[in-house]
Amino acid sequence: MRMDYFVEFASTYAYLATMRIEAEAQKAGVALTWRPFLLGPIFAAQGWNNSPFNLYPAKGRFMFRDMERRAAALNLPFKRGEGVDFPVNSLVAARWALAALTSPQGPAFCRAVHAAHWGQGRDIAKTEVLADCARAVGLDPAVLAAAAPEQKAALRANTDAAMALGVFGAPSFVVYRDGAAPELFWGEDQLTDALHWAQTGRLRR
Amino acid sequence: MRMDYFVEFASTYAYLATMRIEAEAQKAGVALTWRPFLLGPIFAAQGWNNSPFNLYPAKGRFMFRDMERRAAALNLPFKRGEGVDFPVNSLVAARWALAALTSPQGPAFCRAVHAAHWGQGRDIAKTEVLADCARAVGLDPAVLAAAAPEQKAALRANTDAAMALGVFGAPSFVVYRDGAAPELFWGEDQLTDALHWAQTGRLRR
Repeated sequence: MRMDYFVEFASTYAYLATMRIEAEAQKAGVALTWRPFLLGPIFAAQGWNNSPFNLYPAKGRFMFRDMERRAAALNLPFKRGEGVDFPVNSLVAARWALAALTSPQGPAFCRAVHAAHWGQGRDIAKTEVLADCARAVGLDPAVLAAAAPEQKAALRANTDAAMALGVFGAPSFVVYRDGAAPELFWGEDQLTDALHWAQTGRLRR
Repeated sequence: MRMDYFVEFASTYAYLATMRIEAEAQKAGVALTWRPFLLGPIFAAQGWNNSPFNLYPAKGRFMFRDMERRAAALNLPFKRGEGVDFPVNSLVAARWALAALTSPQGPAFCRAVHAAHWGQGRDIAKTEVLADCARAVGLDPAVLAAAAPEQKAALRANTDAAMALGVFGAPSFVVYRDGAAPELFWGEDQLTDALHWAQTGRLRR
């Protein structure tokens, strides 16, 4: 019973998943692999040069209101930073995360990055913000900054794997059960479904 | 505490909502208004000349697999009819539904149409299929067929209202609470959220 979490740090809904996935996977007894990836190349392959939330304003307005409601229900802050790009360029954050995930503090670093971006409205395209996240979880920013460029291939591999698995948005969860094809779940509200599927091979009734 | 259900009979996920919304709204004590509408003009306004599930194949593959899983969890059949257009032309079905909704059998007719299309894979663009649905719920097909053209303006009004409320997909639910702006919920998995919002003005925690 294992699950891949395809996490894109620019994504609003992924922030909500990031903040609760570790605890819920542990409770469900599901082994979790954090797989930072980039939606940009996947959107580009679909012919989009921007987030669908920008391309389709009604969808964007709904999403930001829905995020307010959902974050409140989870007791999480939600803040869109003034002057911060949406979607933010998450390339460097993803590489830092991959470097951090070679240590036990990796998931905590991922939470810190997502919380900085969508909980505090900070610009995670800036390495000083990533450095703050590293320090907050006991990692050395200089070490991560030095290790991040080496994660270029790993980030590409995760993005390619996501595309091959049919991922088209974030957050996405892929559940692997013996003898069955991988099952893709999409959206923060399918996290619980995905974990239940990992445990039982079906959805809750 | 009242809620509008914007229902598009071509929509797969709306089928799941249609089959359970009446019972759940009643249980929650929320007054429900069925508002058949057409997504086509809303998609066209966004620059789409087709369903996003056709335009974006990865999204489409995910949706059909997700529908299988979700229908199974709700103990509902799910069948894509061979040779039936996707999305089906739901214009006549929507007008028949509006005519049916002037009688107490309206919601049952809506369920029959959605169940015919996505439970049995039938082509609801054909009036003989709609006639079967009418007879199944004790309505006279000849009466509906005669009344349907008069619903042209009502269907247009529902579609315009949906667009004005920010609807961009189906199923959509709009909750009205005294003194508050209408709250839009989207997707079958937000039906329970919408009903809880209607009752309490917040999401479940």
